[in-house]
Amino acid sequence: MHPLSEKVVAGDRRALARCLSVVEDRREGYLDILGDLYRRAGRGRIIGITGPPGAGKSTLVDKLIGAYREQNLTVAVAAVDPSSAFSGGAILGDRIRMQGRALDEGVFIRSMATRGHMGGLSGATGDALTVLDAAGFDVILVETVGVGQDEVDIVREADTVLVLLVPGMGDDIQVIKAGIMEIADVFVINKADRDGVDRVERELHSALTLAGEELAWTPPILKTVASRGEGVPELVAAVEKHREHLAASEEGRDRLLLKFTQKFSDLLAEGFLARLRERWLPPEEERRLLEAFVRREADPYTASDEILRRICWEVRP
Amino acid sequence: MHPLSEKVVAGDRRALARCLSVVEDRREGYLDILGDLYRRAGRGRIIGITGPPGAGKSTLVDKLIGAYREQNLTVAVAAVDPSSAFSGGAILGDRIRMQGRALDEGVFIRSMATRGHMGGLSGATGDALTVLDAAGFDVILVETVGVGQDEVDIVREADTVLVLLVPGMGDDIQVIKAGIMEIADVFVINKADRDGVDRVERELHSALTLAGEELAWTPPILKTVASRGEGVPELVAAVEKHREHLAASEEGRDRLLLKFTQKFSDLLAEGFLARLRERWLPPEEERRLLEAFVRREADPYTASDEILRRICWEVRP
Repeated sequence: MHPLSEKVVAGDRRALARCLSVVEDRREGYLDILGDLYRRAGRGRIIGITGPPGAGKSTLVDKLIGAYREQNLTVAVAAVDPSSAFSGGAILGDRIRMQGRALDEGVFIRSMATRGHMGGLSGATGDALTVLDAAGFDVILVETVGVGQDEVDIVREADTVLVLLVPGMGDDIQVIKAGIMEIADVFVINKADRDGVDRVERELHSALTLAGEELAWTPPILKTVASRGEGVPELVAAVEKHREHLAASEEGRDRLLLKFTQKFSDLLAEGFLARLRERWLPPEEERRLLEAFVRREADPYTASDEILRRICWEVRP
Repeated sequence: MHPLSEKVVAGDRRALARCLSVVEDRREGYLDILGDLYRRAGRGRIIGITGPPGAGKSTLVDKLIGAYREQNLTVAVAAVDPSSAFSGGAILGDRIRMQGRALDEGVFIRSMATRGHMGGLSGATGDALTVLDAAGFDVILVETVGVGQDEVDIVREADTVLVLLVPGMGDDIQVIKAGIMEIADVFVINKADRDGVDRVERELHSALTLAGEELAWTPPILKTVASRGEGVPELVAAVEKHREHLAASEEGRDRLLLKFTQKFSDLLAEGFLARLRERWLPPEEERRLLEAFVRREADPYTASDEILRRICWEVRP
């Protein structure tokens, strides 16, 4: 085992923070470390939390930390923000609410915003979750900002996905929600002391009825007022029930298979491109090609095909 | 040239629709077709339009079509919806508003929702834009639904990106906007007859001042009431000005280089994985590996590395 992996598995928190940076930045040795840690992961329960800004995700996460800590479970939080110079302030504000928890040794909070390598933010998040899992946390909460495809991909890395809604959102917001509806294992109507709860619940019910004949698991709809902790114990129970469902059915396994298929493809593609550029497609040649693309004298479709043919496909192992 | 490419270039509309399907579904011959068409593309001006649901994107697109048609320019519209069983209805409703235009021979409208292959929706959109461009349209409008990372990636395929905002959005929405702020070439405050226009404009100005010392192009802020066509001529002029800026500076070229670098990488990775699975990683072997990953007896990091080593990296061309 890599020395850093050993420390992480042994529960060294400073090593954990360093390890997460190594993995996020794809620094020397990160593949070896992930290989080590992957085999030791798989015990933590990973819970994804998504929903539109203002739905109260951070507040709910804070209460969930509290609930799991009362059960003597350790908790890691990965707060994932698609990086943006403009959004830094707002998101930082959210994070601060959780800082009180940082003094608790059973809690570990990490903000993540890395992008740019293959597999994008969701790939990097998946790797970070593997690290946190191998570090021995009982519960790992993944929280996203926003509601785009990126967020959908990120929370897909979780075993159980909570989708938060709030009453009083217009029809415009209903459209935003499209895409996150399908991934919900548990719906949470937060700020349930506001007007319009019944309407949201009715809409959810009809959407579920529409979609859900052949669902093995029907996502329950829970109501919370996270700021006052109302409904949090019921939510924790619903998450536990979903966990039992995954363990008892094929679905848990199928989900992992799907997740690892994607991961495996990303790793193969990422590794291939790195080797390709290192050995057969030096920067100056790639640059020449790209410039020919811009002038429309060559095209990336034909060029990529020619490169793939040339390099290695005559050989049989 | 592939027979379908020839027809597309010759202006055959039925061939164009068929070609777009071939490309979106990655059917037999699609790489050859894209290779043909890529070399004939590069003349159309591609304009991306994004912004939160309810900002009036479809209405504005309709007015832009009208304005360009008055200049005797032909217009293609690619309306891109991240596919979702839940959202189908709402999006269809939006599209219908444009249907009047479908009778005009100088207008071509295409809805796209394909996902699932490498490069995702933005990769597929980029290919479709190449097809529309090669088909000879003077103006190509790309409209997205929603405001996630996916939408950011999609409108990045455009030469000029319009970001729509509306007055009266709360702070919550400001957070959603994070990430689309950076990609705006032109800001459009639509529904500018509503209260709160000044506030949005002030916020935009201060965000731009904060970010923009070294910007070669400062995104102008325009106000429109798309439903009444107000501000549309000024918007068309601003787009034209941005186009001139791209042509006169290095930025147009740099953008294309960035876009084609991504495209080229996606194609290389996609082609590699297809060949890998066809020849060296039969489905049953991949399945065995994936099951070992689920049992944590193997890990995708080490396995992908071993496969890459084994296959082809001893050979030098």
